[in-house]
Formats: sequence, C-alpha cells, structure tokens
Amino acid sequence: MTLHVPLAPRRELPAAFSAALIELLGERFSTAAAVREHHGRDESLYDPMPPDAVAFASSQDEIVAILRQCHEHRVPVIPYGSGSSLEGHLLAVHGGLSLDVSQMDQVLEFRPEDMSITVQPGITRKALNEYLRASGLFFPIDPGADASIGGMCATRASGTNAVRYGTMRENVLGLTAVLADGRVLKAGSLAKKSSAGYDLARLMVGSEGTLGVISEITLKLHPQPEAISAAVCSFASVQGAVQTVIETIQMGIPVARAELVDALAISALNRYFKLELNEAPTLFLEFHGNEASVAEQAQSVQELADGNGGSGFQWATQQEERNKLWSARHNALFAFLQLKPGCRSSSTDVCVPLSRLAECVLGAQDDLASSSLIAPVFGHVGDGNFHVCLLLDPNDAAEVAESERLNRLIVERALAAGGTCTGEHGIGLHKIDYLLEEHGEVAIDVMRAIKQALDPHNLMNPGKIFRSVA
Amino acid sequence: MTLHVPLAPRRELPAAFSAALIELLGERFSTAAAVREHHGRDESLYDPMPPDAVAFASSQDEIVAILRQCHEHRVPVIPYGSGSSLEGHLLAVHGGLSLDVSQMDQVLEFRPEDMSITVQPGITRKALNEYLRASGLFFPIDPGADASIGGMCATRASGTNAVRYGTMRENVLGLTAVLADGRVLKAGSLAKKSSAGYDLARLMVGSEGTLGVISEITLKLHPQPEAISAAVCSFASVQGAVQTVIETIQMGIPVARAELVDALAISALNRYFKLELNEAPTLFLEFHGNEASVAEQAQSVQELADGNGGSGFQWATQQEERNKLWSARHNALFAFLQLKPGCRSSSTDVCVPLSRLAECVLGAQDDLASSSLIAPVFGHVGDGNFHVCLLLDPNDAAEVAESERLNRLIVERALAAGGTCTGEHGIGLHKIDYLLEEHGEVAIDVMRAIKQALDPHNLMNPGKIFRSVA
Repeated sequence: MTLHVPLAPRRELPAAFSAALIELLGERFSTAAAVREHHGRDESLYDPMPPDAVAFASSQDEIVAILRQCHEHRVPVIPYGSGSSLEGHLLAVHGGLSLDVSQMDQVLEFRPEDMSITVQPGITRKALNEYLRASGLFFPIDPGADASIGGMCATRASGTNAVRYGTMRENVLGLTAVLADGRVLKAGSLAKKSSAGYDLARLMVGSEGTLGVISEITLKLHPQPEAISAAVCSFASVQGAVQTVIETIQMGIPVARAELVDALAISALNRYFKLELNEAPTLFLEFHGNEASVAEQAQSVQELADGNGGSGFQWATQQEERNKLWSARHNALFAFLQLKPGCRSSSTDVCVPLSRLAECVLGAQDDLASSSLIAPVFGHVGDGNFHVCLLLDPNDAAEVAESERLNRLIVERALAAGGTCTGEHGIGLHKIDYLLEEHGEVAIDVMRAIKQALDPHNLMNPGKIFRSVA
Repeated sequence: MTLHVPLAPRRELPAAFSAALIELLGERFSTAAAVREHHGRDESLYDPMPPDAVAFASSQDEIVAILRQCHEHRVPVIPYGSGSSLEGHLLAVHGGLSLDVSQMDQVLEFRPEDMSITVQPGITRKALNEYLRASGLFFPIDPGADASIGGMCATRASGTNAVRYGTMRENVLGLTAVLADGRVLKAGSLAKKSSAGYDLARLMVGSEGTLGVISEITLKLHPQPEAISAAVCSFASVQGAVQTVIETIQMGIPVARAELVDALAISALNRYFKLELNEAPTLFLEFHGNEASVAEQAQSVQELADGNGGSGFQWATQQEERNKLWSARHNALFAFLQLKPGCRSSSTDVCVPLSRLAECVLGAQDDLASSSLIAPVFGHVGDGNFHVCLLLDPNDAAEVAESERLNRLIVERALAAGGTCTGEHGIGLHKIDYLLEEHGEVAIDVMRAIKQALDPHNLMNPGKIFRSVA
C-alpha cells in the first residue's frame, strides 16, 4: 500500500444533481469506474480516491452551470487539468465531482504587440509554446510534466527558468474564475501592472482549486532569445557549485537556467544516457541573449566557476550540442528510476534562501547516507529550490514511511533556514502539516477565513491546503 | 474648496481608550490639533479630515498593543507612513486613530548573499538605498515621493524602472502584518519563490491599510549595475515613441527606464530648466548592464527610434551627463507647476496594454485640447502607465470639477482598452467608483468578503478601496 488518504464524510450524489448534469453535458458527464478511477489519482503516492462522477466542461458557461448545480446540491468539486499533481491535489477525499477542463484547451486571444495571450485552462504548456512557435514569443514556465496552464496557476508552478523569467505568480496578468456559487470573478487586467484593489489574481494563483475554478488566464509572454548557449561544469563540492550561482546572480548575469545535479544523479545519467560526465556535483547552465551576450555570460560564469573549484567547463551554442548537454538533465527522472528497478520517485520540494542552499543540500545528503533509500538530488539552484528524488517501492510500507521521515527532516531543515516546504509543487494533501509549521496558526486561520468567505459550504476541493473544519 | 470627503459616522474616542494609549505611549499619543491636522491630509485634493488622535508606534509589539485597544474599543485605525498618498488614503473619514509608523525606520536584517533585506515599515526608499550604497545592491522601486516602504507595500507602488525590476508586487518576499484584532500574521518567507498556500503577502501588498498594519517587510534587492547609460530622443509623434518602446521590449532589450514626456511637458522643462530640447514627444531612456551591453542596448534602441521617426538621439554614460539628461525628467513636477502660478497638480494614473498606449495618450491630449485646463503628460511607457498632470487652482470649484471630468474620460478610455484605473497610486477614496467599473461587482463583493473575514468590525482604514457597508 502507498500513502493513506485521510477520511472525510462522503455521501451519494443526489439523483437530481446527476440528472441535471446529464441534461447539461450528455456523455460528458460520466460515472464509469474507469473514468472516475483515472480522475481520482495523480502522480503522488496516495492511494487513489475516485470522485463520484466526472464532468468534462467545454466552456466557461458550462463551468458556471456545473458549479451552480454543485452549489445547489452541496456537491464537492475538484478541478482537474492534466492530472500531473505530485501532492494529492486531485483526490476526492470528500467525494463529489471531478471537473475536467482538459477539453477547454483553446487560445482565446493572442496579442503579440502586448506580449500577452489569453487561454483556456486546459491548454498545456507545450501546446501553448507550439502555438507561439512562429511568433517570436514564448511562455517560459516549464514544470517537469506537460501540465495544463490552469493547473500551473492553481499550484503556482515554476520550473527550470524561473530564475530569469519568474513563476506563475509573476506571469499571470489576469484571470477569470468561477466561484463556488457560480459567480464569475474577473481579476487583473491586460495592463502590466495595477494598484487597483486587492490582488485577487495572485490570490487565485496557488489556491489549488479551493477558491474557484480558473476558467480563463491571461499570461505574460517573453521574446524568444536570439541566441541560446548551454554549459555544463562539475565541482569539487556542492558549496562550490552553489557559490558560483550566488556570485552569478550577484553580478547581475541574467542566467536563464542554473540546475544543480548531485554526484549520484550524475552517475545515474552516465549509466542511462551512456555519458562520461565527471561524477561530482554539476551545474547545467543556460544563457539567453544575443550571440555576443551569451558568449560573454558563459565566459563570466566560467571565471566564477574556476574560482569555486569548477572544472571541465563545456559550453555549446548550436542547438544540437546544447540538446546533447541538456537532454540528460531534462530526462533525468527516467535515469533515476533505473537506479532501483520497479521503483517510483517521491520528490521533496523545499526552497531556501541561496545562502543556506548548500548546507540544506548537504544536510539532505547526510540524512540519505544513513538511510536505506537512495535518492538523487537536483535543483533549480538559482531559486534555492531543490528536489530529493526518494526512490521507493510504493508497495513497501517501510520504504514509504522512510521516505516520509526523510521528507520531514528535509522540510524542517528548510524551515529552520527561513525557507518554504514547497517551491513549486503546492500543498495538496501531503504538506498540510508543513504549511502550518511554516506559516503558523494565524496565517492558516487567515487562509481558512478567506476560504470560508468565498466558499462557505466548503465545496471547492475540500480538504486540500488545510484540513476541513468538521 | 477642494474635493469633498464622503461623510461617515464618527464618535468621540472613549476615555478608557485614550487613557490606555497614554499609558502605553506617553507623549507618542497625541490629540494636538496640529498633529491631527498633519495626519488628516495627503497629497490629494481632498479637504483634510483629521483623525481624533495620532499614535506614534516604535515597535511591532506596540502596534499589537495599539490595535488590541482599537479592537476592544472599536476605534478605526489608519496606518500612516510618510503621508505621500495621492488618492486620499490617509483621511480619517470615520474618525479614529492615525497610527504613524514613521519612527519604525530601521533595517532589521540585511542578507547580502541572498540579496534580501528585512526592514521596518517607516524606512523610506531613499534611506534604504543610502543604507545599501556601499553594498553593491539597491532597491529599485522609485515612486515620485520619498515614500515609506510600508506605504509603498500598501499601495503596490512602482515608479520609473518597473519595466525592468517589477513593482512592489514582485519585490516583496515576505511581510508581517498586525491584524485588526492584534494577531500577528507572517506571510511569505525568505525563499525566492513558494507554492505554500494562499499568497497572503500579495494580498497585503496593495490592501491600502484595510486588512492590517504592515509591520515588517522583506524585500528583494538587485545588483547595482556595473554601468548605466542614459539617452534622450524626440519623435514626430507619440505613436513613434511608443512603438519604439514596444519594439525595444519585443526584442528583449532589458531597458531599465523608458519615460515618455509630451511636447507640452518638454516646453515646461525647457522653460524651467533652461534647456533646449526639441518640443515634441520625447523618450527618456536608461540602460543598465556592463559597459559593452549598455552601449549595445543604446545603439539598438537608437536604430529602432530611427525607424519610428525619432531624431536627435543623445546618449551619455558618464554620471554627470546622465544626470543632466535625466534631472529634468526627475524634477518635472516643479517645472509643470510653473505653467500656472499657484496651481496644484491632480495626476491621473491609468495603465493600459502597450498596444493601446499611444491611442490612450492621444485621446487624453484631445480631451485636453478642448478643456480649460492645461496638463502636461508623462508616463512609464514601458509599463503602459501614464500620468496626466491636471494643473488647477484647488480653490476653484469649476477647475476641480473639470479635472474630475477629464480624469473620468481618461479612466473610461483606459478601461475600454483593457487597462486599469490605477497603475501605481492605488484607489484610496478617489477611485472607488472606477474600481467597481474596472473589476465588476463580483470582484468588489469578493474584496468586501475578504475584508469582512479579516476585519469584521471594519476598523482598518474604513471607507477606502470600497465604501463601507452601513
């Protein structure tokens, strides 16, 4: 068995509710076991917990109609995008309806002059960039999965290039969300900045479906860089690698990606991708700019690396060479999973101030040294965010428990350093207790009060972020 | 008379309240007329509306003690920083206590390696940068006034270099706020990003004192650029100037400042500063980087300007020359006020998508052409934010009414273009109706619901952002 899902009271769907949704959606309302099962799981270790039914919405108006029915009949609703949550966001712990928006995957308006685009929530980040390919613009935020933009809003996602381009927090200009009672909330605008009242767009970004269903999103876009260069460099120590990135940022070098990969992870990459990288802490770097500036950036960072015990600095400007350097990093998880046949990975997600990053990574490696689990470490080191990929047999309760123990040690060290329990994956079910430790009771009470004010019947993804009050 | 302040029920301060505050604060609690008068006004056109008393807090613990008293005795509280609001934020429309935090002006912790700093709310932006001068770091956000950091948080301020460095929204890592009942809320962390629950830091930023008193702020800092260059270029048309900035941003040139100054404003600058600038729409630009990159940026923008009817491109890298080019822009208000002896300026603050900026500026100029008021226009054109400085005699009711009429035309045009009624000044008293027009009733209802959840007795800066429910 895997992680246990907390129990919550459930009741059968009222017949009148199901009838109304069948009338509204026809075959896009389903109670089939396979469909429910598929919507009651995610990429976390939790036992699946299917919803009672699944609704596939095709428009904002349909979301409104569905939520009105849910509100009238007091049926919980779990918004569903691409199913790539890592923290149990999608599990129907109170039963109810999974509201799948993946069919709402259209671009609604593209404004190249404003470098912004309005999309439906079901479009995935890769589909969005495919749409933008010929425009000279792109959307930079790249979590590991091909997540939906709506889901990325809901978890305040980021990825490998947040160090330069920011996270979903900085890249959502505005959004529309349908509230628990079916009202349509418009937040933000097309303007790049605003001081107009409470920042409701920022409140919805990261709310994990607990305050409403995000139905339209206006995103900031960025110019595709004229030139890109990539570099790889290994270090005698984690400290040297981290210090190189600290100095890079302090010098104002606009590095686009700065990924730390630890020695164990490099050995996994070597074995799986048949590479001959030095099995030591390694930085994977990417620079965006014009030809002269990417060369200059790479040279400056190489000098910093040299001063911090770096060696074997390789860099490449041509796409093929760059892909060769970076594809191992981008596909690292496949290599990691080979370290323990049949395993799954449970990923930690702490984010700490840069000055404490090396100590937190080394602390995690120390914890691992005396553990039965093996776990490669990689991280978005420019942000202070790193993942320990705890490899385990999900059917081995002892291994699951050990991964939870290690996760706790890593989180507690991060919180003691002034960091956060989650840099980009969100709270879901898995970090409810850590959230309380991180922010304290007043903050959780304030979050609950906001939730209560906007969703008094606790219908929107209940039981996530904080426990439902009985 | 100037703008009329909406009336609200007031009552005398309870004697027990005053006694408790005297015991707590001694001479730092004042009911002196001059002190109250000073705290009941700001830089807006509103008639002053003094609070019943003023408390000068010297620590977060004191803020807690004061707010507990206010809560117990149901006394409204208006947080007060440097008094530089432009929209009536500080007026005691419900009476009550002005809570002045200007004596809380210390740096609490500076973390150069993390490029972050934790400060008290009363420190001003200039004092902060003075503190940072030798560190190689700086805090970029520069509203016109030497505002307090707490006030800048409260209004989600920005300034001339938000195009590169963002606004207070992007530059607050975390903060502490004391809630209406005296509870201490900690939001955010020292980490650069987080997905840990609702973004309460972003909710407090821009809340204009209506949700709590901001008592500590952790800010993101930026490296002082190795080299700075400045440029000035005039254009045959507003469109040409705006198009140059659009193309600059689309090319990914990281321009640090891009200010549009219209022909009337240039003529005011020429007269006041004895300059000989071409009296045409003009861009003031600034580039940050190293020596090679600022030269390259300036050259690239000059080429773009040439293609858009730009002429007389001057640029300078030495501080003295730069200051010569920019000091007129930075001190423009003094020049503008000379256009009409004895006048004051009422500044509009719309922000629109860049593609609609030229049309909105030209529309405002058209409105002005048939108006009795004269009003130079300047703007943070990289953000789509511009100010029309309506020059008027504050004692002339007709001129005040005319300025309000023009403001309304300018706001309505901005909203029709998908923009916002305020890019950086906030809502205060002045834009309550525009906020409703901009976001609609659902959004205002949501804001009210959040306010009610956190401040059920409506004690925190009541009557601002939206009207108090009777």
